[in-house]
Amino acid sequence: MGAHEAICSEVLKAITPGPEEREHVVSLAEALMDRLRALLEDEGIEGDVRLEGSLAKDTWLSGEADVDIFVRFKPEVPREFFRKDFLRIARKAAEGLRQVERYAEHPYLECWSDGVRINIVPCYDVRPGEWLSATDRTPYHTEFVKSRLTEELKGDVRLLKKFMKGIGAYGAELRTGGFSGYLCELLVIYYGGFLKALKGALRWRRGTLIDIAGHYEGREDEAREFFRHHLIVVDPVDPYRNVAAPVRLDKMCLFMAAAREFMLRPSRTFFFPPEPRPLGPRELVELLSSRGTSIIAIHTRTGGMVPDVLWGQVYRTLRALRGTLAREGFEVLRTSAWSDERENCVLLLEFASSILPPVVRRIGPPVWVEEHVERFLSKNMTDPGLVCGPYVEGDRWVVLIRRRWPDAKEFLVKKLSERGGRDIGVASLLARQIEEGFEVLRDGEIAKLCSGLEGFSSFLRDFLVGRPAWLAGRSA
Amino acid sequence: MGAHEAICSEVLKAITPGPEEREHVVSLAEALMDRLRALLEDEGIEGDVRLEGSLAKDTWLSGEADVDIFVRFKPEVPREFFRKDFLRIARKAAEGLRQVERYAEHPYLECWSDGVRINIVPCYDVRPGEWLSATDRTPYHTEFVKSRLTEELKGDVRLLKKFMKGIGAYGAELRTGGFSGYLCELLVIYYGGFLKALKGALRWRRGTLIDIAGHYEGREDEAREFFRHHLIVVDPVDPYRNVAAPVRLDKMCLFMAAAREFMLRPSRTFFFPPEPRPLGPRELVELLSSRGTSIIAIHTRTGGMVPDVLWGQVYRTLRALRGTLAREGFEVLRTSAWSDERENCVLLLEFASSILPPVVRRIGPPVWVEEHVERFLSKNMTDPGLVCGPYVEGDRWVVLIRRRWPDAKEFLVKKLSERGGRDIGVASLLARQIEEGFEVLRDGEIAKLCSGLEGFSSFLRDFLVGRPAWLAGRSA
Repeated sequence: MGAHEAICSEVLKAITPGPEEREHVVSLAEALMDRLRALLEDEGIEGDVRLEGSLAKDTWLSGEADVDIFVRFKPEVPREFFRKDFLRIARKAAEGLRQVERYAEHPYLECWSDGVRINIVPCYDVRPGEWLSATDRTPYHTEFVKSRLTEELKGDVRLLKKFMKGIGAYGAELRTGGFSGYLCELLVIYYGGFLKALKGALRWRRGTLIDIAGHYEGREDEAREFFRHHLIVVDPVDPYRNVAAPVRLDKMCLFMAAAREFMLRPSRTFFFPPEPRPLGPRELVELLSSRGTSIIAIHTRTGGMVPDVLWGQVYRTLRALRGTLAREGFEVLRTSAWSDERENCVLLLEFASSILPPVVRRIGPPVWVEEHVERFLSKNMTDPGLVCGPYVEGDRWVVLIRRRWPDAKEFLVKKLSERGGRDIGVASLLARQIEEGFEVLRDGEIAKLCSGLEGFSSFLRDFLVGRPAWLAGRSA
Repeated sequence: MGAHEAICSEVLKAITPGPEEREHVVSLAEALMDRLRALLEDEGIEGDVRLEGSLAKDTWLSGEADVDIFVRFKPEVPREFFRKDFLRIARKAAEGLRQVERYAEHPYLECWSDGVRINIVPCYDVRPGEWLSATDRTPYHTEFVKSRLTEELKGDVRLLKKFMKGIGAYGAELRTGGFSGYLCELLVIYYGGFLKALKGALRWRRGTLIDIAGHYEGREDEAREFFRHHLIVVDPVDPYRNVAAPVRLDKMCLFMAAAREFMLRPSRTFFFPPEPRPLGPRELVELLSSRGTSIIAIHTRTGGMVPDVLWGQVYRTLRALRGTLAREGFEVLRTSAWSDERENCVLLLEFASSILPPVVRRIGPPVWVEEHVERFLSKNMTDPGLVCGPYVEGDRWVVLIRRRWPDAKEFLVKKLSERGGRDIGVASLLARQIEEGFEVLRDGEIAKLCSGLEGFSSFLRDFLVGRPAWLAGRSA
């Protein structure tokens, strides 16, 4: 047995649920399903109560059970029913448990029992391709995966999921932009195992196409044209769906890089990264001041946005700010963001320097463009910021002139105070929060966020290091 | 009479030589020509002694007479004769005058009498197109111009020359890269006057073609293809020569810009710019420190290079340094150079900032390019300058790493100390001078050059202001 297999087998022992845990979770699920069935029968509502998700497929990780209970209704049932009667019945079935109503495309109930999350989700019983709601595919996914996974492959799925979690690439939600559980299952099925999937990923490029059911056999370019994504994994139960659509390019490549490194230097660290040690305020101030770059943090409230909306707003805003700041001459090296997904969020921008040289070259029109020359000369020669010129360089008028915004922090404070920063590209829901209140902090000042925001300090440490834990083996 | 004509007429009075000055210069020329003729006859050498240049064409400016005496020899005379016997005879003819032997394409004698420069130049008597030396065209130029200039047009040539001098665009030598006297004459002939030439220049664009003799009639695009220059003025006496070849784009455009401004706001300033007031050392230090940019000066010796060689080396070096520094991340706003054309030269580079942020983003290979990834990771992870990463951004590995040369002055001092800076693009003759000795000065330090180098202070003032004097009328 090679080093890779040895590590996999050791990890597998740690992440496969034992009989006791299984028993506990399964009985919990069955009890709830029984109550649901009884309540539906009482009300004379026809609905097929089924166990779905990783529990049904036996691909869940020990200590991280998610119970997905689906109720499948006839297509004639109106959508209105989901929002009203269904939620009422689900709440009644889960009486005594902590409950949260959630809304994806349609409403469902999330509840908690002994640290196990249980989702009670309505869907329609339709034929493939005749989808009425986003969750109608799930029972087909479950069937497809169950029909293809052997006992051994179930372990391989667990390994791949744990690997993805360890490197920070697990989860299709917007925050992560990574690999869903179903996608991990498909990769293991397609490549025939965990290590084979890692090796397979080494051959991925932009536009890689994986089509297990052969929906596009002989028409691969058509599929690439249709999906237009760097990673395309065609859903075996729906030829019009790319299961890898949520995977961002950097997460695809992070997985490829980690897979390559694991094949070269296998280690438990990929599956069990060390807990990030939070930074003390003095340590942080020192790290930031000796770093040589400049970091600006924008802190505001989330206003109760659901995570996928929040992260959409956050990423859109970071992209826009990067562009706006670049147009002002600032070199943004990296951006990132943190949120507790309840109250607070912090946008981080790292600059080569957040203060720019005070003078810029402003290139004017060619000397022969009459009206523009007139405007350029009269505008700049009366500008109190004029440092040098106007002079002719090549065929154009040029001046050296004081920069309007030499300080990125001042720029941000000013612009965010006006309409919440909408004019510099802050997404509208986030701009509404910024209008309620925000603070902009630079370098050492950021330390004060660490005491108030739980988990921010660990995040900041990771951000400052910027190096995946699984690369650490090399520095030695 | 309009404002333009009034100013022209006033200027013309000041720059047209009076009878006394004419008499003095012409008799000086004739005396020398007579002695030359006598000496040639004594030695039994056949040679036609002729007056050429602005004196012959009557287009010279009062106080700035240049006497060009040409001796035209039969084509059979060997080139060797020019270098030896001719120079001996010329020196003898100019006995008693201060003499300097000059070399353009071939040798000639420059001498001085009462502040008047006299050039004694040999050339061949050949038919147009059968040129044996660079100066053989001159007698034909003289004939062409004389045949076309009326008395009034002679005044217009004087105005255009003075205008070009006033704006710093007069002279075909490399230092200036501007308009020769002959080119000014052709422009006045072509457009039919001084003001008409200025108006004509407003319609110039890149690739403007002026073909007085109609050598390329109906084949204008062919001419543009052949000459490939932004301003083409075909020599009436030689269809293969562009009289405007030495005119750099910025000098062409400077003239266009000045012409436009003169038409809008006529003023004597175009012809008689104020003498630049030299800067006191305290004034200079203050100007430089409040400016917000950073200026670096490289001071070295000329090693007796003749001006056209020196300026070729200087401009080539400035272009190369600009490129090298840009590759190191420095934003060079402007460059310039000063020389007394005898001993000293100073290269000036103005930076947005001569000190850069200490950290740069180094973008590595895509994660799937095996060998490059291996090299990038091992190289950067052991680099003591590593600040952050390696991390995956998009499809590539990236690191933040300390910049090797954050200080342009340190960079230049180091690189100029190695092989005189040849490796960063210093032209070889200048590099040889730098190997003998150089100094690099920044901002306030530059003040110390002003006391040692005569004329540098005025130059520096003009460089710092960077605005043509003739634009000053606008600020009021």
